[in-house]
Amino acid sequence: MDFSLTEDQQLMVQAIRELMARESWDQYFQECDDTHTYPERFVAELAALGIDSMMLPENHGGMDADWVTLAVVWAELGRLGAPTYVLYQLPTLDTIVREGTEEQIEKVLAYVGTGKQIWNAAMTEPGAGSSLSGMTTTYTRRNGKVYLNGQKTFITSSAHVPYLVVMTRDADNPDVFTEWLVDMTLPGISKAPLDKLGLRMDSCCEVYFDNVELEEKDLFGTEGKGFARGVVDFDMERFLVAACDYGWAHCAFEDAAKYANQRVQGGETIGRYQLIQEKFCNMQIKLTNMRNMIFEIAWKFDNGLMGRGDCSMAKYYCTNAAAEVVDDAIQVLGGIGVTGNHRVARFWRDLRVERISGGTDEMMILTAGRAVLKEYR
Amino acid sequence: MDFSLTEDQQLMVQAIRELMARESWDQYFQECDDTHTYPERFVAELAALGIDSMMLPENHGGMDADWVTLAVVWAELGRLGAPTYVLYQLPTLDTIVREGTEEQIEKVLAYVGTGKQIWNAAMTEPGAGSSLSGMTTTYTRRNGKVYLNGQKTFITSSAHVPYLVVMTRDADNPDVFTEWLVDMTLPGISKAPLDKLGLRMDSCCEVYFDNVELEEKDLFGTEGKGFARGVVDFDMERFLVAACDYGWAHCAFEDAAKYANQRVQGGETIGRYQLIQEKFCNMQIKLTNMRNMIFEIAWKFDNGLMGRGDCSMAKYYCTNAAAEVVDDAIQVLGGIGVTGNHRVARFWRDLRVERISGGTDEMMILTAGRAVLKEYR
Amino acid sequence: MDFSLTEDQQLMVQAIRELMARESWDQYFQECDDTHTYPERFVAELAALGIDSMMLPENHGGMDADWVTLAVVWAELGRLGAPTYVLYQLPTLDTIVREGTEEQIEKVLAYVGTGKQIWNAAMTEPGAGSSLSGMTTTYTRRNGKVYLNGQKTFITSSAHVPYLVVMTRDADNPDVFTEWLVDMTLPGISKAPLDKLGLRMDSCCEVYFDNVELEEKDLFGTEGKGFARGVVDFDMERFLVAACDYGWAHCAFEDAAKYANQRVQGGETIGRYQLIQEKFCNMQIKLTNMRNMIFEIAWKFDNGLMGRGDCSMAKYYCTNAAAEVVDDAIQVLGGIGVTGNHRVARFWRDLRVERISGGTDEMMILTAGRAVLKEYR
Amino acid sequence: MDFSLTEDQQLMVQAIRELMARESWDQYFQECDDTHTYPERFVAELAALGIDSMMLPENHGGMDADWVTLAVVWAELGRLGAPTYVLYQLPTLDTIVREGTEEQIEKVLAYVGTGKQIWNAAMTEPGAGSSLSGMTTTYTRRNGKVYLNGQKTFITSSAHVPYLVVMTRDADNPDVFTEWLVDMTLPGISKAPLDKLGLRMDSCCEVYFDNVELEEKDLFGTEGKGFARGVVDFDMERFLVAACDYGWAHCAFEDAAKYANQRVQGGETIGRYQLIQEKFCNMQIKLTNMRNMIFEIAWKFDNGLMGRGDCSMAKYYCTNAAAEVVDDAIQVLGGIGVTGNHRVARFWRDLRVERISGGTDEMMILTAGRAVLKEYR
Repeated sequence: MDFSLTEDQQLMVQAIRELMARESWDQYFQECDDTHTYPERFVAELAALGIDSMMLPENHGGMDADWVTLAVVWAELGRLGAPTYVLYQLPTLDTIVREGTEEQIEKVLAYVGTGKQIWNAAMTEPGAGSSLSGMTTTYTRRNGKVYLNGQKTFITSSAHVPYLVVMTRDADNPDVFTEWLVDMTLPGISKAPLDKLGLRMDSCCEVYFDNVELEEKDLFGTEGKGFARGVVDFDMERFLVAACDYGWAHCAFEDAAKYANQRVQGGETIGRYQLIQEKFCNMQIKLTNMRNMIFEIAWKFDNGLMGRGDCSMAKYYCTNAAAEVVDDAIQVLGGIGVTGNHRVARFWRDLRVERISGGTDEMMILTAGRAVLKEYR
Repeated sequence: MDFSLTEDQQLMVQAIRELMARESWDQYFQECDDTHTYPERFVAELAALGIDSMMLPENHGGMDADWVTLAVVWAELGRLGAPTYVLYQLPTLDTIVREGTEEQIEKVLAYVGTGKQIWNAAMTEPGAGSSLSGMTTTYTRRNGKVYLNGQKTFITSSAHVPYLVVMTRDADNPDVFTEWLVDMTLPGISKAPLDKLGLRMDSCCEVYFDNVELEEKDLFGTEGKGFARGVVDFDMERFLVAACDYGWAHCAFEDAAKYANQRVQGGETIGRYQLIQEKFCNMQIKLTNMRNMIFEIAWKFDNGLMGRGDCSMAKYYCTNAAAEVVDDAIQVLGGIGVTGNHRVARFWRDLRVERISGGTDEMMILTAGRAVLKEYR
Repeated sequence: MDFSLTEDQQLMVQAIRELMARESWDQYFQECDDTHTYPERFVAELAALGIDSMMLPENHGGMDADWVTLAVVWAELGRLGAPTYVLYQLPTLDTIVREGTEEQIEKVLAYVGTGKQIWNAAMTEPGAGSSLSGMTTTYTRRNGKVYLNGQKTFITSSAHVPYLVVMTRDADNPDVFTEWLVDMTLPGISKAPLDKLGLRMDSCCEVYFDNVELEEKDLFGTEGKGFARGVVDFDMERFLVAACDYGWAHCAFEDAAKYANQRVQGGETIGRYQLIQEKFCNMQIKLTNMRNMIFEIAWKFDNGLMGRGDCSMAKYYCTNAAAEVVDDAIQVLGGIGVTGNHRVARFWRDLRVERISGGTDEMMILTAGRAVLKEYR
Repeated sequence: MDFSLTEDQQLMVQAIRELMARESWDQYFQECDDTHTYPERFVAELAALGIDSMMLPENHGGMDADWVTLAVVWAELGRLGAPTYVLYQLPTLDTIVREGTEEQIEKVLAYVGTGKQIWNAAMTEPGAGSSLSGMTTTYTRRNGKVYLNGQKTFITSSAHVPYLVVMTRDADNPDVFTEWLVDMTLPGISKAPLDKLGLRMDSCCEVYFDNVELEEKDLFGTEGKGFARGVVDFDMERFLVAACDYGWAHCAFEDAAKYANQRVQGGETIGRYQLIQEKFCNMQIKLTNMRNMIFEIAWKFDNGLMGRGDCSMAKYYCTNAAAEVVDDAIQVLGGIGVTGNHRVARFWRDLRVERISGGTDEMMILTAGRAVLKEYR
């Protein structure tokens, strides 16, 4: 057993600390959140450190980083208050190299280092939730072209990404699920942005496809394998959510700990009261559990040992444990935690959304619970 | 034992239902919340039903209503989505009749029926939290006048009320706590509004007093009895918070129940799944507990039996139980619960603030816990 | 609304207090628990107060008591440490008058006032849990007689009752569920007692029926209506469990409160510490909730308003809340709570079993949750 | 990061599995538990594997094992149902080598490999709980001898150990705390055994010292340093408790998982129901958290990085999380979990006692919470 970081990982942490100390980023994040703006300037700085492409193979200019290193980076960024949830560059780049055509890869990798949003996958539909059976968006081949029709809902990032990977069914054969890499400037696409309770630096829209004309070369992955392709990315997405959430909880905890040692009430710093000490014991327990769970799963992935329920379990546990830690931190901060747009209140809203987006708590519970039971059959 | 409503109480419920059905109030509430605006038009309608003055003695034009009836009204308004937290008219009118001079009573009762905000009490200070020992706002007598100096923080409603009841210490004798009914248009008063996570239809400010000149007749209650006076109102305030919170929880629960019976996922309405049924069982338990706790305490108050920890217990339990019910409702509603400013998300933010304002959870726990133990000494 | 007791109910409480103060019953209960003995001497004393027959109609010598009064009695007995769970006389007598033949009624009512156990219903089977679909105990008619064959499991009281009401299926027509009032001295019946974690003053056996010969007159209720009959009793049984559990929680709470005010640790009574005060606040909340829930449901039953999920909700909530209160009480009592057979440890074991017997937590959750959702369809 | 076991650790696990598979130990444990008997035959078998002396330096015949290895052993023994809580040999031997005189070391090491109990420390007193301020057991020097007087309470293992390390105060100078290695056969010592709710394979007594005559050479450690000495052992004791508790939770979880995959209810194995899947998800989360917390703390200790609140946090978290896992397992097992002395019921009783003995939950919370806050001062 070894719980220490490698030297390279420590250097990464150091680089992140320097970046985050360079300016008062929190004010920028607060403005982005208030105005529902993607923090491109910040992501570009991360890209300058190579963080957007860290998972890319070295021959594509990446670091070929493992999941443990990924978790180290996410945890430290979060601890310092960064909105890591906007970083869809990572799964996007990971996927394109694995699934894309040469032309598609080229188009996407052009975004490396820019800090710009690239794409997101569009799966959820109004009548279908996260399940596929009720999906009604279709593609139809006609005269050498492909036509998309349907509606997607709650599509993260969709207001501004140049591409969307859209899950569809063959209009003539509904059992065939196929994805398309759709250029969002095409005619026939319209979007209705949704106001969100949290995760406001990223957009969320209803997206409508009305006879959107595509070419065959826009097919993404393998025809009929769309669902299987999408599922592969679920685990990484859930893992990243867990790592984001842990980071923010750590950040809120540190804000609260400093405050509890300074704020005087009834002649004592509030940290001297048992009810406050109890909160810090419980926060520490949850931070310890989240951190270890994330790193153990990362290590398992890196060593080919990851279980099928692991990432679902981590998303469920970390989102909820992080929400509890942040809730405790708000309570310690009292009035200043719920006024003046303190970042703990932002994390708290963000975490509420995390329990639904990217797979609800309930889906995570069932996925993880079934995986556990399967091992004892 | 009898858990039924009187005929008069049922008529009250009926009147509220008619008022709430008259228009789509929720849109109005949402706009008020977005723009941090007090919903005066709505409160005026409640006043037209006599709700603002229901606790006033009949000789002052009120209904002389008891707490059970008060709870019935609050619960029904909340169930139908009303922001009952803005109704500070009730404790205000209750207090002025008990504590005010004839002139003060006249000034305040002039607001009956208008729907306008009247006053709030200003106790909390930056270095003092809810305790008195660290309070530094003072009054000084000089040449027949009284001068206020100091700063209050997190003062609810303070942006727009015409009066503020300000707790101060005698500058020459800090053990003497005295309240003043301060006209907010006086020179020397300045306010810095605070952005809040919830309860946004009411304002919240830092309030600064710089040599504010008062007359002796502005003294509120009895000199030196300010603290005791303020404490009397705590119980009613905590009780009202509990009743508000129960109402919203009921509202969110009904929104979720209707949705769960309609929303299809995987070929079934989601209400057919065990994890959803479990949520409804737990929501029902908490609603039952909140309702009974509130009505029992109201009945105890009306019969002179209320215990000293009862309202603290109710504020603590109901705020947290309501937050849990609303959280479950959001989870049932899924994506629509966290987008588009659904009212459940508003309740959820409101309830988070309730756990701090008007006395933190921790203060409630200690007050209630000590009262319990005292009975067994 | 009225939360007070009637004069008659107060007299009942007074009579119970006198009985319980008459001797040190706890030592007797502890011996009965250690030796798995039914506390017949104690139940006979209750019978002398008319408690065993309180629900019987007046023409059968009862008090025709309502559920509120029943709850008052159960709550006070529990508060004073009595093992109310052994009192199956009440549902038994209630049922026999409703369902029995004249001969059966006579046989059963002969036990009124004796304190002896009379019967219990035998439903659960090894392969069937609380569901009926897997039930395999059958009855077969042959030569004017009826023959029972099969096995029941976890049958409470079965070691010593003179009768057992056994649920069976017609061997020739498995859709027909019929109950029989079986004399336990008949040949072909054997029993294997099970050691239990709690509720040890009552027995629990596997019961085997090997060609047990009955008469037609032993049929209980209506042929083919056995299941419906059994279900009627479920609600009362669940209600009684809830009332038992509330009583013990109250008892444990009072033991702990007295101790916390006396026990000195670090120079202060432990009741002065915040973590202990927090426990008492939480215990008080749960006691308040349990009491109100039980009395409200009783009042609803007495007024024909009871909902179909109410008793399931009460069993689930009260068993779990009581277990939490008792757990807190043990923690307050520390070493003395877990040594020397303190009654709080007995309650704690009893409550653990309550969460399974008489319908598991999970069944209660689903029954209550579905009933809630049904109201919003 | 590396979460794998070394080859040596894997061999250890293998040896334990073989030992545990050699016979049906659970029946033996059950008998020992029923009869309050120390399982000497089992501990002797462990000793034959060198487990009792694994922490001893190699020059004393030990393995000089680190804490990670210790945790590996404890976790595996627990997973297979062993009552690891009786193994006080380990801290005893660790302490004697560090603190004992040559003669004392010789006396104690004579027990290596025998499986017999050796000693326990006796700190707690009736009026003093785990604090020292109220301690009244004294030592007095007279005519070259030392005389002990006083009473200790809740002293684990004290019924049968040949020695007890007794914490005392200098009768003439109460600020001087000194420990003595007391031969339990000396005149003046009497013991009153206490019945315990759990941990019944080990004894627990009140111990009375009435002018017990000792020699100077019986002094243990350094005069006046008794308290500091005792505190050193607290961390190891708390760590061992955490490791025991994790193991039993794992055992109960596996029993429940196998059962849930076999037990049919309503035509399905119960593992197909969402409420059961939810339990397994939650159990898995807690097992993951406990395991990682224990191994991380062990690794920190082995690398000189352990924090002062770590072991308290682990005792608190693991005892409670394990109790919750075992509680879930009982619920899955249903009737068989609470009858017939199933081992899950034994673990459940054992864990309840663990939350009090060896330092209450509340002490752990405060110790851990304060340690956390200290790091942010």
